[in-house]
Amino acid sequence: MTGPVIALSGGVGGAKLALGLSRIVDPADALTIVANTGDDFEHLGLYVSPDVDTLMYTLAGVANPETGWGREGETWGFLGALRELGGEDWFRLGDRDLAVHVERTRRLARGESLSEVTARLCAALRVGARVVPMSDEPVRTIMQTTEGDLGFQHYFVERRCEPRIVGVRYEGVERAKAARGLSAALGDPALGGVVVCPSNPFVSVDPILALDGVAERMRALEAPVVAVSPIVGEDAVKGPAAKMMRELGLSPSAFSVARHYTARGLLDGFVIDRADASLAPAIERLGARTLVTDIVMRSIGDRVRLATEVLAFIETIRGES
Amino acid sequence: MTGPVIALSGGVGGAKLALGLSRIVDPADALTIVANTGDDFEHLGLYVSPDVDTLMYTLAGVANPETGWGREGETWGFLGALRELGGEDWFRLGDRDLAVHVERTRRLARGESLSEVTARLCAALRVGARVVPMSDEPVRTIMQTTEGDLGFQHYFVERRCEPRIVGVRYEGVERAKAARGLSAALGDPALGGVVVCPSNPFVSVDPILALDGVAERMRALEAPVVAVSPIVGEDAVKGPAAKMMRELGLSPSAFSVARHYTARGLLDGFVIDRADASLAPAIERLGARTLVTDIVMRSIGDRVRLATEVLAFIETIRGES
Repeated sequence: MTGPVIALSGGVGGAKLALGLSRIVDPADALTIVANTGDDFEHLGLYVSPDVDTLMYTLAGVANPETGWGREGETWGFLGALRELGGEDWFRLGDRDLAVHVERTRRLARGESLSEVTARLCAALRVGARVVPMSDEPVRTIMQTTEGDLGFQHYFVERRCEPRIVGVRYEGVERAKAARGLSAALGDPALGGVVVCPSNPFVSVDPILALDGVAERMRALEAPVVAVSPIVGEDAVKGPAAKMMRELGLSPSAFSVARHYTARGLLDGFVIDRADASLAPAIERLGARTLVTDIVMRSIGDRVRLATEVLAFIETIRGES
Repeated sequence: MTGPVIALSGGVGGAKLALGLSRIVDPADALTIVANTGDDFEHLGLYVSPDVDTLMYTLAGVANPETGWGREGETWGFLGALRELGGEDWFRLGDRDLAVHVERTRRLARGESLSEVTARLCAALRVGARVVPMSDEPVRTIMQTTEGDLGFQHYFVERRCEPRIVGVRYEGVERAKAARGLSAALGDPALGGVVVCPSNPFVSVDPILALDGVAERMRALEAPVVAVSPIVGEDAVKGPAAKMMRELGLSPSAFSVARHYTARGLLDGFVIDRADASLAPAIERLGARTLVTDIVMRSIGDRVRLATEVLAFIETIRGES
């Protein structure tokens, strides 16, 4: 028994491991999945929270397995009609997905917090694990590019990550507090460990770490903090992480990601792919224990197996400290 | 050539005649279709304008011919998903219909007037005729029932017109100005006539007439004001008009509708069905000329034919005055 576990996650890649964790964390323990909300945005007057939704849909078993975002069995009547009206159609809102955005927006307008709304939506979708947004206050990931600043979704979806980035900032993060669910989980004396899911360090994990006190509290934890590399070889398993690293002057590799976290004293363990086994000694010298395994999750079996290995890795680190 | 024509309309029944008029009013003239907005409401955070939409969809040829509301070829992914989330599903918002509400709400939030937004939506849907909301300011039709006050859509859709009404009031009407499109059309010295479409007098036409100055200006017009009865025999052609009349102590008939308008000095002519031919003398004694014809519009041919007869009736009245 590991004790309560916190998982920090962005969208697709992170959600896969979160799903695996949700299947194996002892029900007597608690799994708190903390969703990045730095890429939340208002679109067409609706509050859209892409990483919360991807986590929610993945954990509910209703995610679209082909796109990596949105819902399975989706229809597109709304978007087609909006296009006819000359509306903004670059962000693909499916008809069923839209129900979540409309209901969330309505509840937020009534004064409910993003945490409360997320809990309600998860309950309605019968998500067993606790998904908490990182903060109930707005943090907006801004991509600083050679073409100027771009909101994350404009960069990621509308511009397909084409603009060259020179930096990333998290607007509002200095005023945003960690959501109570995250704060309480970090303060639980029984905490077994923190899993940093294989999500993009710059746009999925760093916004969470940038919240007031979160990195400090993670450094001070007795429980191990273990990350799973989002990079295999020189490529991101999914998404633009490798491109971003190159543009930020980093060579894309699991080692660079490990250093990104260890430089801030945040990592007790790092999980890398067998293809990167040769990087293990260098990563160990950064002060993180390493686990070498298969980290590309193709099937549900892969997700459960990797989650099991990650929790065992946490146990091992705890036993040794 | 009649000159510019104003049509006052609610939803389904009115929209049928409006469509007929739009096919025959000389393009050199102007047809201004004034939509009741008393049954507009905010639903799920979206601004819904049922009569504007029914007119727009009918004139664009994309209305659902079976339901009398909404769009043809509609899908229901949004509503199904909203139901799963425990959201309010009593007002049936189709996926394609929803695009109009989202786009309208977004534009209103940007500061555009309802008139401007309606003009844009009509242009996008290639509606030739000019559809103007009766006012850019909120007027809300409240049904006073034995169970208390109910907003119109709650009465009409959620409660299926079941509560017994004791009165109707138009909240905000004392502060609402006629929209510029209506005001300008009423002030046009070339105005050929006003057609009161076969819409519910209490909840579709009266909200327009209750706007500051509208009834007064209509009384002062040189151009004839002609209404088409929404009642044939003792029944409404469509909707709850007859039930409302009974509950308000009126016997439901074309005569009662004629008296409803003539009592305020508003009517020069009244169009009734052949089935009600025997009422013509009594209606003439109220001071309105009558035209007896087939007023139930089943086909597009019926709409064009009735519209043609109504305009000829206006010509006749003008010739005689």
